[in-house]
Amino acid sequence: MNKRNLETCFSPALFEAEGHANSIIVIIDVLRASSAICTAFANGAFSIIPVGEVAEAMDYKSKGYLVAAERDGYVLDFADFGNSPFNFTKEKVNGKTIVYSTTNGTGIINLSLSAYMTVIGSFLNIGALTKWLIKQDRDILLLCAGWKNRFNIEDTVCAGAIADILMRSKCYTTICDSTLVAMDLWSIASPDLPGYIEKAAQRTRLRDKNLDDCIEFCLSTDFTDKIPVMKNGALIADL
Amino acid sequence: MNKRNLETCFSPALFEAEGHANSIIVIIDVLRASSAICTAFANGAFSIIPVGEVAEAMDYKSKGYLVAAERDGYVLDFADFGNSPFNFTKEKVNGKTIVYSTTNGTGIINLSLSAYMTVIGSFLNIGALTKWLIKQDRDILLLCAGWKNRFNIEDTVCAGAIADILMRSKCYTTICDSTLVAMDLWSIASPDLPGYIEKAAQRTRLRDKNLDDCIEFCLSTDFTDKIPVMKNGALIADL
Repeated sequence: MNKRNLETCFSPALFEAEGHANSIIVIIDVLRASSAICTAFANGAFSIIPVGEVAEAMDYKSKGYLVAAERDGYVLDFADFGNSPFNFTKEKVNGKTIVYSTTNGTGIINLSLSAYMTVIGSFLNIGALTKWLIKQDRDILLLCAGWKNRFNIEDTVCAGAIADILMRSKCYTTICDSTLVAMDLWSIASPDLPGYIEKAAQRTRLRDKNLDDCIEFCLSTDFTDKIPVMKNGALIADL
Repeated sequence: MNKRNLETCFSPALFEAEGHANSIIVIIDVLRASSAICTAFANGAFSIIPVGEVAEAMDYKSKGYLVAAERDGYVLDFADFGNSPFNFTKEKVNGKTIVYSTTNGTGIINLSLSAYMTVIGSFLNIGALTKWLIKQDRDILLLCAGWKNRFNIEDTVCAGAIADILMRSKCYTTICDSTLVAMDLWSIASPDLPGYIEKAAQRTRLRDKNLDDCIEFCLSTDFTDKIPVMKNGALIADL
């Protein structure tokens, strides 16, 4: 088996749309979109329709959909709930289709659709995700959502954790500076991940808004074995 | 004295032009533009005119200027020399004005001109630069040139080294994830900087083109105390 390429992109602003037609793109938005999406599928959600624009989310709401929508951490007033993973309970989401719009995460899902496949990665599904990725035998781009197009610590560290597992499988090769640096950061952060994430700007933002109750959960590994995969405009669980 | 803000930007593609009117922007392109510029001033250059476009560099050449110009490491055929620091010898540059155009570095010098001041940083002038910055008492943005808008290791590590010195001065504060990560990378890289840079993609690119003879020099500290500063469209040495 030829080794597959592994690359990492730290922000949607650094994303080059071309060249991924045969690759799997893994979207990472640890605090909180990709963690919330993984939680929703763990709790039985049927599908999630990611939408970038608020107006589009409102339109779905008026058609009777369950809508999760936030901007800068706050639930939008027309929405059923925001993007804390703790909102996506079994009672609310089991068997349901959810329309989902967040500050950073959902816009880039749609940005990545030129890829062979788009999937959602987080610490919550990291074990199952990496096993699944290795089976697909495709080039991979780890695409960090960042924060308003900026680099952020938590998505980079998660990309590093994923890259670390993939590289240990010996199925991948990389000459990507971002991947190598993400792995180095993971080596610093992994002995005490919540301690390392303390310094992240998003950690402070969520604390200032009293939205930080879910952080410890978002940094925990292997809560679920679901792999959210984009198919025909919606995320569904591949496992 | 109020603490000044310190921020880092990993790529021109992540640069936000607004908000820097009172800040000093430090351009970092370790391999090789900012190292070459620092070397030129160490060897007595009078001024350097950075130009982004090849056509503009050709135009200056036709007017009789000394022109250093490269793309992807190779000297452009009309130019007097390329951007190895070893080209900028005392014999060639002492007392001269040089027109300079490179793949990544010189374009972003012009991009940054909305700032209060633009200066050039490298390992070669790091000690003098950081002392000089602290004296200026301004907010600082460390702007990495990267490679064709991508993140790169060597500029990030240099930004981390600069940030480490500035933060130790207690004159600065930062809530910038990029700055904190750059400092962590510097902590990994500093015990063996040339060893760490071995894995950088640009290290490989330069080796493949037999252009890597200058790397050890570019990673050495305090070769010069010159601070290249943009004034009226050209770089001059502030010290």
